[in-house]
Amino acid sequence: MINLALMGAGRIGKMHAEIITAHPEANLQFVYDVNEGFASQVAKQNDAEAVSSPEEAIINDKINAILIASATPTHTQFITMGAKAGKAIFCEKPIDLDINKVNECMKEINGIDVPIQIGFNRRFDNSHAKVQQAKLNREIGDLEMLIITSRDPEPPGLDYLNAAGGFFRDTTIHDFDLSRFILGNDPIIEVSAFGENLFDENAKKAEDYDTAMFVLKSKAGVMIHINNSRRAVYGYDQRVEAFGSKGMIISNNQTPTSVERYNDFSTSSKEPALHFFIQRYEQAYRDQFNHFIESIKNKCKPSVGFEDGRNALLIANAAYESNRLKKTIEINYE
Amino acid sequence: MINLALMGAGRIGKMHAEIITAHPEANLQFVYDVNEGFASQVAKQNDAEAVSSPEEAIINDKINAILIASATPTHTQFITMGAKAGKAIFCEKPIDLDINKVNECMKEINGIDVPIQIGFNRRFDNSHAKVQQAKLNREIGDLEMLIITSRDPEPPGLDYLNAAGGFFRDTTIHDFDLSRFILGNDPIIEVSAFGENLFDENAKKAEDYDTAMFVLKSKAGVMIHINNSRRAVYGYDQRVEAFGSKGMIISNNQTPTSVERYNDFSTSSKEPALHFFIQRYEQAYRDQFNHFIESIKNKCKPSVGFEDGRNALLIANAAYESNRLKKTIEINYE
Amino acid sequence: MINLALMGAGRIGKMHAEIITAHPEANLQFVYDVNEGFASQVAKQNDAEAVSSPEEAIINDKINAILIASATPTHTQFITMGAKAGKAIFCEKPIDLDINKVNECMKEINGIDVPIQIGFNRRFDNSHAKVQQAKLNREIGDLEMLIITSRDPEPPGLDYLNAAGGFFRDTTIHDFDLSRFILGNDPIIEVSAFGENLFDENAKKAEDYDTAMFVLKSKAGVMIHINNSRRAVYGYDQRVEAFGSKGMIISNNQTPTSVERYNDFSTSSKEPALHFFIQRYEQAYRDQFNHFIESIKNKCKPSVGFEDGRNALLIANAAYESNRLKKTIEINYE
Amino acid sequence: MINLALMGAGRIGKMHAEIITAHPEANLQFVYDVNEGFASQVAKQNDAEAVSSPEEAIINDKINAILIASATPTHTQFITMGAKAGKAIFCEKPIDLDINKVNECMKEINGIDVPIQIGFNRRFDNSHAKVQQAKLNREIGDLEMLIITSRDPEPPGLDYLNAAGGFFRDTTIHDFDLSRFILGNDPIIEVSAFGENLFDENAKKAEDYDTAMFVLKSKAGVMIHINNSRRAVYGYDQRVEAFGSKGMIISNNQTPTSVERYNDFSTSSKEPALHFFIQRYEQAYRDQFNHFIESIKNKCKPSVGFEDGRNALLIANAAYESNRLKKTIEINYE
Repeated sequence: MINLALMGAGRIGKMHAEIITAHPEANLQFVYDVNEGFASQVAKQNDAEAVSSPEEAIINDKINAILIASATPTHTQFITMGAKAGKAIFCEKPIDLDINKVNECMKEINGIDVPIQIGFNRRFDNSHAKVQQAKLNREIGDLEMLIITSRDPEPPGLDYLNAAGGFFRDTTIHDFDLSRFILGNDPIIEVSAFGENLFDENAKKAEDYDTAMFVLKSKAGVMIHINNSRRAVYGYDQRVEAFGSKGMIISNNQTPTSVERYNDFSTSSKEPALHFFIQRYEQAYRDQFNHFIESIKNKCKPSVGFEDGRNALLIANAAYESNRLKKTIEINYE
Repeated sequence: MINLALMGAGRIGKMHAEIITAHPEANLQFVYDVNEGFASQVAKQNDAEAVSSPEEAIINDKINAILIASATPTHTQFITMGAKAGKAIFCEKPIDLDINKVNECMKEINGIDVPIQIGFNRRFDNSHAKVQQAKLNREIGDLEMLIITSRDPEPPGLDYLNAAGGFFRDTTIHDFDLSRFILGNDPIIEVSAFGENLFDENAKKAEDYDTAMFVLKSKAGVMIHINNSRRAVYGYDQRVEAFGSKGMIISNNQTPTSVERYNDFSTSSKEPALHFFIQRYEQAYRDQFNHFIESIKNKCKPSVGFEDGRNALLIANAAYESNRLKKTIEINYE
Repeated sequence: MINLALMGAGRIGKMHAEIITAHPEANLQFVYDVNEGFASQVAKQNDAEAVSSPEEAIINDKINAILIASATPTHTQFITMGAKAGKAIFCEKPIDLDINKVNECMKEINGIDVPIQIGFNRRFDNSHAKVQQAKLNREIGDLEMLIITSRDPEPPGLDYLNAAGGFFRDTTIHDFDLSRFILGNDPIIEVSAFGENLFDENAKKAEDYDTAMFVLKSKAGVMIHINNSRRAVYGYDQRVEAFGSKGMIISNNQTPTSVERYNDFSTSSKEPALHFFIQRYEQAYRDQFNHFIESIKNKCKPSVGFEDGRNALLIANAAYESNRLKKTIEINYE
Repeated sequence: MINLALMGAGRIGKMHAEIITAHPEANLQFVYDVNEGFASQVAKQNDAEAVSSPEEAIINDKINAILIASATPTHTQFITMGAKAGKAIFCEKPIDLDINKVNECMKEINGIDVPIQIGFNRRFDNSHAKVQQAKLNREIGDLEMLIITSRDPEPPGLDYLNAAGGFFRDTTIHDFDLSRFILGNDPIIEVSAFGENLFDENAKKAEDYDTAMFVLKSKAGVMIHINNSRRAVYGYDQRVEAFGSKGMIISNNQTPTSVERYNDFSTSSKEPALHFFIQRYEQAYRDQFNHFIESIKNKCKPSVGFEDGRNALLIANAAYESNRLKKTIEINYE
């Protein structure tokens, strides 16, 4: 049985607590949150113990692994603390919004050999993963174009936006990582980014975008298009299209049921897409955690680690520069 | 150039006139209709000549072929007249509603060698024909089940119903023939029929059904289900599903455009199905006539002839018997 | 916490054990199986205790409810024992293959007020349930036709067939019940059944069918078509189509992922349908059990009970008579 | 009857000849082609007369309108000649590859009031037109993103490529125009273009691209993505997606039939997309010509004229500049 400490008991922390509890080989031991009420509640619902400091949760011999789902600015601190205490680490994306803090953290934990997994959940979605496999096994021949559509069902509030680090670092970072996942060992070398504020007053107040498009290129010449919106009235729109010399594979949207309706104005109508990430990526969140547990048990590196978190952030940062300068930016991964 | 006389200038006659005119190797010479105004109008619109008797249209050396689209009770008379005059004959379905008249006509024209084609247009639909080919070339292995859904968009008027010969002989006859087409040389041997009057007041007045289901069996054991309705609010519903030992092929509905809509209550919504037979089977009607012209040119028997019209009627008659007696009826093709 | 005894630890019993274990308000206490090895294994995997007689499992004060997943001939015995001991009862379908045993059991438990739920899992499938709701709330106007396609991915072995009670009682019984579920308070009054042995040697040996079609009528005139096969190479084919005066709703097949493939011979290709009932109806099995627990907690009658099990069997029996006599049979529910 | 002279009797000229011939109010009088054999053949097949100079075809009192389908460098010369002779003009896209020649031509015909229509056929496709209507009538609320996928089934030969003026001017020009069509009176103000040579040896020899992506912005802030390829093994891929504040509308691909196949490795498989432009846009080509005839009859300006041809070329030229400089280029329409 692997004993875990959960850092952060907000919406996503609560979801992780339930996943841990449901896993036959994992046990939720401690819950820490800066808001003690949140910690107590999640602890209670999952037969765990609420603790009042990060150290109590992390630096404890009972604990094998920590799951970091706290506010982004605390991530690097907990990663460092966990790594130094020899714990396996699962950290929600992003590692941090500031590349300097990410680099410092990388230096701090340099040479420490613990499994670190970053929460890029979409890599574990069975449908998106089929696209990656089709690229890998050359089912579609040479990959030539990759097109990712990623639109939230509705915009978040102003508080969220003010802390989120901007649309590209908060949202598109998933798509940058998904592109990297599908490309495999063919790195992304260039990015052109285009942001707009078209409808969301909160985004305007936060000086953020609500709509964006991107074109990226890989070293092998693969062209990647990403488009994002903070609002899609028909649900959480999550599509991936990989086009190659021998065909195309599309990971399509998913609806709550397989029902189709016919009436006097429309036919074959499906339901709106599954509403948001916890529903749409339920299977992915579960399998992501399975992978973490398997990595610990088999003492192997998780398939998505610190370096992946850092690289996606570097692309996001280059995207901001491209958007500001209105030109294509080469990405420097050093 | 093949010169044709058109018998009947109603809705379907008008459509045939346009198809003849558009064909590069056919010429519409004469138009006859019991309503002289109809004949004149169709003649005028197609650079043809209206004539005032069937004999003038049919028994004329200029004429190579006749196309019979007049009222059903006149069909056998015109077939006989045309055959005796040595003309190629295209006759709309059904040959007649009365099997005795069909049998008499068969006897009358026995031994006369002219091409006779019956207007079972659905055989010429490119999508349905793919189902027939898939059966023929064993793409789906052994055919085991055939399921035909055939629902009109809206019910006809009382006058039509009073003359139509009943739902099974007017509507299902197409599905009986389509089943025979797909089965190829495996004959239908049994029919069970179930009719209901669920919604249409005119059908009730005409003592007719508006909703029906059928189960048929072929000699080889293929099971066939047909369902019919006089009304489908989402358009003309025309589906054929062939299920076999190695897979399934479905000929699906068709919409006017390839547009799909997404909004806050539905996704992937297509338009209603093409509204009715002239739109849905436009390609089939054209290719049906091409086949007639080719048969004349190549002096060969059309792929769907008098025998097919008679056999479909025999199944419809057996269906009425089954429905009356509430039991399965064996079909006697003698 | 509701403590359960599981009767039967075969494939379906094992699945139920896992569902019980995963439920936050249920506890698997005892496992009984005529094969003690099966019982021990399932007990061990679910922290329960294997017992060596039905009485030990059922007649025990610790036990609140029993879940019967044993061989069909034992069902009525366990129902009776459980009811007399005052336990809530969940029993897999069918109650029994012999209507006399079902009637006897009904008499035996007459007047005993315990919740009894029969395992017609498809009623709890979210997609099929939307069809039932659409009928209920008249979203499609008046229901006129109901078409159920239900084809297993592959045929069972000879042992299974010899014990299964025949295709109509083993397989179609689900579709009879699903029809009854969707019709609501409009009873099925007539059945016409057509069975064939087209491909399965084991079915032939067991004197059973592998392919079947049915037409049923409800009191209100709704026409129902069911078709069944023991084998569909493209997966477990489970479709429900409800057609009415204002439209149509279809519960369609489901695939493991939302991937579509495009290559030089096909486009928009989805994966084969989810392979079999445990995968396809995973959500339904879970929610079926939730409903059982809720019924116990709220001391109310489960929505699908003994009467439903009996009625579906009466339809199956009438179907056999129809098939034998080649005529429509009225169903007597007395 | 409107009498036409056809300039150019190659593949596309031949298609136009057939469309003219089939039109009830149009008559093909003269055919001119630099290759006299081509001219004779097309003339013969359409009951027209081959002439040996442009002047004979255009400057003739019998002629009401000219249809220019000759090599691109001859377009402006024939437009000028036709306009000065007072003929209505239909000209295939592009007007010319050289903006200077386009501007000169514009000056030459300035003040001459004849209908001029440019052959942007996609505007007349019923499916794409529904997208434009949905934008216009605000069915999808405010348009925010437009995504056009346009991929040819197979690359052209080297000769074609050497004369075509480059991928952006030859192919993407259709997508630039389609974007302009859907945007209506909201002009495109910026373009970012990205070309690659990934697979086509001929394109490499012609120093041309075979794969490209674009991001454009309109004055109102609408973001437009276009992606192009010279080869798609699954057919001519022509999709348009318009995303807005109240929903989305997609004009999807079209297949030759409505057949779907199911086997042991895939389900719901459709056929490859209609192979190329003459098949896919058959309806659009016909209705484009209808519109030209209606414009002549009603003495009104065609909905897509010289200015549209020029503007699409200006965007293509800006796209080349963007691709060269790796930055976003503002479009100057002066």
